[in-house]
Amino acid sequence: MPSRFELANAIRALSMDAVQKANSGHPGAPMGMADIAEVLWNDYLKHNPADPAWPDRDRFVLSNGHGSMLLYSLLHLTGYELSLEELQHFRQLHSKTAGHPEFGYAPGIETTTGPLGQGLANAVGMAIAERTLAAQFNRPGHTVVDHHTWCFVGDGCLMEGISHEVASLAGTQQLGKLITFYDDNGISIDGEVEGWFTDDTAQRFAAYGWHVVPNVDGHDPDQVKAAIELAKTHDDRPSLIVCKTVIGFGAPNKQGKEECHGAALGEDEVAAARVRLDWPHAPFHIPEEIYRGWDAQEQGQARQAEWQARFARYAEAHPELAREFLRRQKGQLPSEITSEALIEQAQAKGESVASRKASLGCLNALGPQLPELLGGSADLAPSNLTFWDGAQAISAEAPGGNYLHYGVREFGMGAIMNGIALHGGFVPYGATFLIFMEYMRNAVRMAALMGTRAIYVFTHDSIGLGEDGPTHQPIEQLTTLRATPNLATWRPCDAVETAAAWDAALKRQAGPTALVLSRQTLPHQARTKPQLAEIQRGGYVLKECDGTPELILIATGSEVGLAMDAAAELAQAGRAVRVVSMPSTDRFDAQDAEYRERVLPRAVTARLAIEAGHVDAWYKYVGLDGRVIGMTTYGESAPAGDLFKHFGFTVDNVVAQAKALLDA
Amino acid sequence: MPSRFELANAIRALSMDAVQKANSGHPGAPMGMADIAEVLWNDYLKHNPADPAWPDRDRFVLSNGHGSMLLYSLLHLTGYELSLEELQHFRQLHSKTAGHPEFGYAPGIETTTGPLGQGLANAVGMAIAERTLAAQFNRPGHTVVDHHTWCFVGDGCLMEGISHEVASLAGTQQLGKLITFYDDNGISIDGEVEGWFTDDTAQRFAAYGWHVVPNVDGHDPDQVKAAIELAKTHDDRPSLIVCKTVIGFGAPNKQGKEECHGAALGEDEVAAARVRLDWPHAPFHIPEEIYRGWDAQEQGQARQAEWQARFARYAEAHPELAREFLRRQKGQLPSEITSEALIEQAQAKGESVASRKASLGCLNALGPQLPELLGGSADLAPSNLTFWDGAQAISAEAPGGNYLHYGVREFGMGAIMNGIALHGGFVPYGATFLIFMEYMRNAVRMAALMGTRAIYVFTHDSIGLGEDGPTHQPIEQLTTLRATPNLATWRPCDAVETAAAWDAALKRQAGPTALVLSRQTLPHQARTKPQLAEIQRGGYVLKECDGTPELILIATGSEVGLAMDAAAELAQAGRAVRVVSMPSTDRFDAQDAEYRERVLPRAVTARLAIEAGHVDAWYKYVGLDGRVIGMTTYGESAPAGDLFKHFGFTVDNVVAQAKALLDA
Repeated sequence: MPSRFELANAIRALSMDAVQKANSGHPGAPMGMADIAEVLWNDYLKHNPADPAWPDRDRFVLSNGHGSMLLYSLLHLTGYELSLEELQHFRQLHSKTAGHPEFGYAPGIETTTGPLGQGLANAVGMAIAERTLAAQFNRPGHTVVDHHTWCFVGDGCLMEGISHEVASLAGTQQLGKLITFYDDNGISIDGEVEGWFTDDTAQRFAAYGWHVVPNVDGHDPDQVKAAIELAKTHDDRPSLIVCKTVIGFGAPNKQGKEECHGAALGEDEVAAARVRLDWPHAPFHIPEEIYRGWDAQEQGQARQAEWQARFARYAEAHPELAREFLRRQKGQLPSEITSEALIEQAQAKGESVASRKASLGCLNALGPQLPELLGGSADLAPSNLTFWDGAQAISAEAPGGNYLHYGVREFGMGAIMNGIALHGGFVPYGATFLIFMEYMRNAVRMAALMGTRAIYVFTHDSIGLGEDGPTHQPIEQLTTLRATPNLATWRPCDAVETAAAWDAALKRQAGPTALVLSRQTLPHQARTKPQLAEIQRGGYVLKECDGTPELILIATGSEVGLAMDAAAELAQAGRAVRVVSMPSTDRFDAQDAEYRERVLPRAVTARLAIEAGHVDAWYKYVGLDGRVIGMTTYGESAPAGDLFKHFGFTVDNVVAQAKALLDA
Repeated sequence: MPSRFELANAIRALSMDAVQKANSGHPGAPMGMADIAEVLWNDYLKHNPADPAWPDRDRFVLSNGHGSMLLYSLLHLTGYELSLEELQHFRQLHSKTAGHPEFGYAPGIETTTGPLGQGLANAVGMAIAERTLAAQFNRPGHTVVDHHTWCFVGDGCLMEGISHEVASLAGTQQLGKLITFYDDNGISIDGEVEGWFTDDTAQRFAAYGWHVVPNVDGHDPDQVKAAIELAKTHDDRPSLIVCKTVIGFGAPNKQGKEECHGAALGEDEVAAARVRLDWPHAPFHIPEEIYRGWDAQEQGQARQAEWQARFARYAEAHPELAREFLRRQKGQLPSEITSEALIEQAQAKGESVASRKASLGCLNALGPQLPELLGGSADLAPSNLTFWDGAQAISAEAPGGNYLHYGVREFGMGAIMNGIALHGGFVPYGATFLIFMEYMRNAVRMAALMGTRAIYVFTHDSIGLGEDGPTHQPIEQLTTLRATPNLATWRPCDAVETAAAWDAALKRQAGPTALVLSRQTLPHQARTKPQLAEIQRGGYVLKECDGTPELILIATGSEVGLAMDAAAELAQAGRAVRVVSMPSTDRFDAQDAEYRERVLPRAVTARLAIEAGHVDAWYKYVGLDGRVIGMTTYGESAPAGDLFKHFGFTVDNVVAQAKALLDA
């Protein structure tokens, strides 16, 4: 039987060899954390390499994602479908072993990490999801949800602000099954961190209400094991195990230095490390007995089989709950969901309301049908209107709720939502003002990159926010959202389009959706049945004119009403003007050419786009011959009505610009 | 002589009256912090209402900027040029009293605040600037820089991640003259914070190495005063004074509740508060004796006069230093700066290098001429190449340096840079990978909104980053930067354009500049003298063809070389193809119509833009008849060469797309 040290050295060898072969990557963290990982994965981690989707597996998150070879080594060694060949193609096109762990590329990767701090936030989200799912589904004598979330973090993660946001919330929420290992190696890219990072991290996490195990030698398996045991007994709060490690442990000339952090060690140093570690095997060669020491397949199968048996008993005792559990695991919506009917109802009702208020109406109607909805807001619930009638705050005392008071923590919220979605069993939605999307921006991007099903409720979507002024008024934020690959963005013009947007968001499995909503009241628009159906095409003719249009007005959200009023005035002046409502540009772009041509015929070059957002991206639809009424500067602090006038969002201006185009 | 309580009530009255009149705003924070502000401003703050630009004034930052009426009241009462009439126009168009304090709107506003947490970061930047400026300019017997930075923060600021980043750095930097007051009122917008914010904040800040004064009654002037005295004696580290306060203090039915946070109290409650506070005066009426109790004009003049005398003695003893001090205060560049000459030199040299490396060359050439440059990187110095030959790290032991190791704290860096720039005496530059601009995004926007002179060095600007993969490869980030009003963005194509970009950034006083630079080598381009001069126009003809062009290739950065190669091949095939290099779209857009028409003649509709960034915004230049070779998806992890091929950035593809356009 190989020693723990020998087992850990398999990680070190694979990591330095793969980085060396790619001549690119980060050997330092895998070599430094190998001993910790060995204890955790061999003695504690509940997983089954044959079924990486087993719902009750432990979750493992490598927040310091640049140490990806640590994870790839673990997956390979314990028996996941990740071959030695894949490890040899580390960081090459179309390999499963990307530079950073990419969700969906290799089995066993729970989340994409690399942008620092977000992995910890994902782990917090997973731990919240586990506890809430357990509260919702476990029954006396029937425990079907009961797993840990383990997380590795480095100095970089703990310097990032997001670590504060999510560790603070994890403390308040008393997430006892979250156990985090801090790789305290004293090195970051600029060198020894003592020049820029002198926190007493143990004290800091104690201030958050965490249980902290300080001063663990991360190269002593007995100490690591004792720390884990201690952490597991403290199940009333999250645990931080502070492990002192040596970065690049085993590389005799580079260990403990920045040099081994983010570059291949070099052939000589790799050879020297083999000697130092007493690892005489050829590159990428793992002896059979080492494989046997790591193999987790048999135990994993047994563990999952035990769970399956338990679940079978549960299904017998609580058949409806079991069906519901499986439905939610698969991410299927209930078959009886009425989100589509809501659209028609809203049309029939014909109410003029703020779209944020219409959104609350959707939540009130759909919330009772969707127990998987896990809502929240970054301390703006009364403004975002996300705390619907059936919302119940989640806390340590009431873990079975469906709503998180995230506090003023936008970035944390975004990345926690990713963790919740990745865990499974929930469809998270989270809210803030559209401008503060910027605080959480990279979490939105990560959701789109991973394809997580998250729904953002971004309210107060323009200068229509009014008095709070330019710091709070979005200008260029819609441009950013729309340019984000795989993000669906909706800016509805009335309650009807708001219902359509919620319907689209809920039905979208392949990625996140941003709902961009107004603070102020929006006028209801008349629609025929076919028009109603066409909302889902992202852009459609809301008002047709007689004959071929001379000019097309394109608008979204709060500017659609303005476009309609201007079109009416132009029609009175005898002009043939079409109005296109374009709530979702990405959805419209995804339509076939024939449909797009029908809505925006190439022959009509007199086009005027109107949106209280930045002008630039609209030239994609109006071309060099068209015009855009939009924003090119920041807003001002004033009542909304004054601002719309001040910045040219008036019928007079639209008519004037339209006439200038028509007369050109 | 009015009591302290009466003086503080003037703030409360003005705040509730102004919010009531606007029927919009936040009375809670001003009413809660009035007593603290009274002690600080009347007994400690060194300022001169007649000269808000006095270099050695204390800096006061209201990080919880929604409490703007607190600041407006203070400015008005102490004698700044901010009339009662302006207070009566709170939150109205073109008033100086915007919803949140806006830098440049009213005298005495040191920074724009509102987006939570950033004010604290600005204050940290100001404290760093003060200490470094002092170290650079004070001489034995001559102290010309010696002031405090005071900051108010609320629960929201302390929940935000950025508070962690900057408090941690402030602790490491031991900023003894930074004194922060925490308005610990237990209330945020969702209600009582105990459901989402249970940090032991005193312990947390102690973990950062701060001096903490806990448990101060924020309504007891004696306790506040004692706490400030204590904080001032601890000049070896920043101080946090934790003040227990009642939000909306004095509003009998709403104080201590969320109701008074962000809405007018209502006529009845305002009247009831008048009774409770024993403030019988009419709305907006301040008795003369209260004005006298607040008036800081005489003392302010005297203090500044004393400083002026001191500065006169300094100028006598150290005339060159004094001139240099004044030059840096004004933000003037040295007259002998050679940044323009660098452009010509780079052209003559003809080197093909990565633009990040060319940027380091600029820093090495210009750094010795520019002691005001205060650099830094968010722990990526060896990759961003920002630690030039003359860079010296700033620390408590060596405060006179010119470079900050910000640690892995992008957002903190961005907002600290704003504080440094606002303080005066410095031109900050800060670096990270372009993708992590997203972590600091709102600080970049705040710089553009305020017009601070900050320079961002964003390297690794595309899929050209290679193996680190999609999490690290920017796609839509350039789109965001370019859509940001008042942000100058440059993506140079070779060392020559890089020098031009640095020249433009340094000479820009009215706002920030983003330099977007490659990881990989970029080929040098040949230019005539007139072409060299035209770089500063943002877009120019880099390669002309014989006669009228049939097609125009527009490219930036690393894609300019590709466009040139493709144009050569098209020329060989007998096609008249022009190549436009467009390093700065905002600069190009600012040119007169005649120039723009000369570069991009309307008549030439066959246009092909090439950029390894998101395609959408380029339709502004190519129109509905043009094409864009760019990105619409995320990148992949692979060597850069493989990626450029994979995503169609090849001569073959450019030629094929060009021909398709020509043959259309």
